Amino acid sequence: MPFIQFHVVEGRSDQELAALLDATHRVVLDTLHVPVRDRYQIVHEHKPSRIRAEDTGLDIERSDKFVLLHITTRHHTTEEKTTFYRKLCAELERSCGIPPTDVMVSIVENTDSDWSFGLGRAQFLTGELQGATGDDTSAPRGPKHPAELAGASLGRST
Amino acid sequence: MPFIQFHVVEGRSDQELAALLDATHRVVLDTLHVPVRDRYQIVHEHKPSRIRAEDTGLDIERSDKFVLLHITTRHHTTEEKTTFYRKLCAELERSCGIPPTDVMVSIVENTDSDWSFGLGRAQFLTGELQGATGDDTSAPRGPKHPAELAGASLGRST
Amino acid sequence: MPFIQFHVVEGRSDQELAALLDATHRVVLDTLHVPVRDRYQIVHEHKPSRIRAEDTGLDIERSDKFVLLHITTRHHTTEEKTTFYRKLCAELERSCGIPPTDVMVSIVENTDSDWSFGLGRAQFLTGELQGATGDDTSAPRGPKHPAELAGASLGRST
Repeated sequence: MPFIQFHVVEGRSDQELAALLDATHRVVLDTLHVPVRDRYQIVHEHKPSRIRAEDTGLDIERSDKFVLLHITTRHHTTEEKTTFYRKLCAELERSCGIPPTDVMVSIVENTDSDWSFGLGRAQFLTGELQGATGDDTSAPRGPKHPAELAGASLGRST
Repeated sequence: MPFIQFHVVEGRSDQELAALLDATHRVVLDTLHVPVRDRYQIVHEHKPSRIRAEDTGLDIERSDKFVLLHITTRHHTTEEKTTFYRKLCAELERSCGIPPTDVMVSIVENTDSDWSFGLGRAQFLTGELQGATGDDTSAPRGPKHPAELAGASLGRST
Repeated sequence: MPFIQFHVVEGRSDQELAALLDATHRVVLDTLHVPVRDRYQIVHEHKPSRIRAEDTGLDIERSDKFVLLHITTRHHTTEEKTTFYRKLCAELERSCGIPPTDVMVSIVENTDSDWSFGLGRAQFLTGELQGATGDDTSAPRGPKHPAELAGASLGRST
């Protein structure tokens, strides 16, 4: 369910982009506790002149390896998010050679009723996937149960 | 006001894309009760290697006809959204030959103060368009009045 | 921190696009009170057939100069937003020749925990940048202090 849009400077090979997507998905699974096949990723490649990424005065130097991940997802706790940021940078450096200075993330949250994965159904509401609350308020939700979610995914049960 | 971004695999003709946009707009009008000319649609075409769309373990098979609609809109009720998902799949299958397994939707909600349709004005706040609440809290809003909105649209009154 | 995606019809020169980005950033600085280097902008260029922008019945005529700014940002007050819309139109007309009828804006708000500008850290939470609330609720936040923010930026202090 996280829908992740990657904004990158054009010039990476197919292999480099695949490695970026795979590495990110590993971190999503590890830190956001979603099902294995909960993977929705899109890459936008931009000419250098079509992208401006400064640093809000933080003294962070950008290179042409800059990646901005724009993530749409249901609610995650602050701890989940901060862990995600930290492990994402570590993993992208380790497996893709992208320096932590080039990794930016912006998250937008929505709710159970905002997702349909296909078949015209809102699977978080139908019970096919575990909903966070059961209504569509924007209030913080209770804890999710990653084990159950992972189980549902691995078994491909509905 | 829904701003709808379509993410598709490249390869569709202009006619196929136009049919997709038209069909979607018919369903928006039917289920989300917005004015006729409340249409803001953009198509992003992606190389197959730049898009990953799995199924969260729901056993939904994707093809190169996959479409992800990323929608930014003011609040809609759960019933409006679920009706939209259902009718969207039916209409895209009927008029575009897109199977329901290839239709994914993700919605992000915002509020009256978050829209300017032109002229430097926030038309939901100025009274030119019917606001949902009149303030910019993120609380659920009261019911909208589609009849009035449609009237305003058809008459092109401000 | 505002992450601004510009959706435009293809055909503008590099110079025209640079002028559009610069002009918008001047208005962001003036009206949203963010640090000077708080600049994250991306341009999406679309074929005319890939973009539909009507007017919600407001009698606003669009041309091929149409620009839709899709902005992801922390909370701003209604007054800040409406001032932004008004000054944006004035500035884009003055410095880019874009008529106010061609300027549309849609904003999506998120919170302090939703941003990492690099280095795997959530800088609004670590204290490197001034957070709005210190937690990740979606409640309206108190006033920010532009002077402090600008000071932090100019001094490049962390």
